[in-house]
Amino acid sequence: MDAFDCIVGRRSIRAFKEDEVPDDNLKKILEAGRWAPSAMNKQPWEFITIHDESTLSEIAEHARYGSFIAEAPVAVAVVTDPSTKWHEIDGSGAVENMSLAAWNMGIGSCWIGSLDREKVKAILGIPNERHLLTVMPFGYPAKVGSSTRKDLDTIIHDESW
Amino acid sequence: MDAFDCIVGRRSIRAFKEDEVPDDNLKKILEAGRWAPSAMNKQPWEFITIHDESTLSEIAEHARYGSFIAEAPVAVAVVTDPSTKWHEIDGSGAVENMSLAAWNMGIGSCWIGSLDREKVKAILGIPNERHLLTVMPFGYPAKVGSSTRKDLDTIIHDESW
Repeated sequence: MDAFDCIVGRRSIRAFKEDEVPDDNLKKILEAGRWAPSAMNKQPWEFITIHDESTLSEIAEHARYGSFIAEAPVAVAVVTDPSTKWHEIDGSGAVENMSLAAWNMGIGSCWIGSLDREKVKAILGIPNERHLLTVMPFGYPAKVGSSTRKDLDTIIHDESW
Repeated sequence: MDAFDCIVGRRSIRAFKEDEVPDDNLKKILEAGRWAPSAMNKQPWEFITIHDESTLSEIAEHARYGSFIAEAPVAVAVVTDPSTKWHEIDGSGAVENMSLAAWNMGIGSCWIGSLDREKVKAILGIPNERHLLTVMPFGYPAKVGSSTRKDLDTIIHDESW
């Protein structure tokens, strides 16, 4: 799919079919994350791939708006390193890349931000000194909702504020 | 260009040709930013487009690793709203979208993170209570460097850390 069409056509997906995400597709999603830019190319991210249904259900219990993680065939926990000043910003670029690479293959996802991070870190064995940025569920969309954005001319300033 | 090829092929560009970025292309870049996901769809971002050479030169003086902003035909300042908790994360997705939409049209860019933000905010008239996330220069690459990433198998964990 053309990159621009992918970017403006992507929607957050919160309902998934049961179909598995093939390993090759998951690998392309992770590759896309790997190639994100980062300050001084520090790449302060690591990814945990989670297929286990009971683990996904446990995580879902600690995601206020992310109960649908339990229904996804796979999720990727994005873990960043706070010893790098820009770890959240860099990690966010990696997540957006993954989300777009998935959409390019007809696979949906959604950024889960509200997590009980201490609980989910314990479930996944993530070291205390690392930050859990998000757990991204991936799967084929069972439903694609509509979305809106502010008009471009209300958020653009010409030459200065 | 296929979205995956765009994502893994994108490189940060720090040297630009003099050619202008056509208005239609700049608009597509901004559109891509506009369609980024954000927590509760708050879209806590506004964009300032900057073509004025003297403004770009002034900004460049306050960007430690971004002197090449002065040579870009256009830059986009990305301003976020700290009253939204996730403004930097959301803004980072918008920036990555813009960077990819540009690359899809053969236009390069580079995240400029080290800025004297108070000085640049004053130059651009950005209100105190807003955050200047980055100033992204955009232009046709005069030089495309190579880059590397950590091997995928060194950053992936299977099921748990």
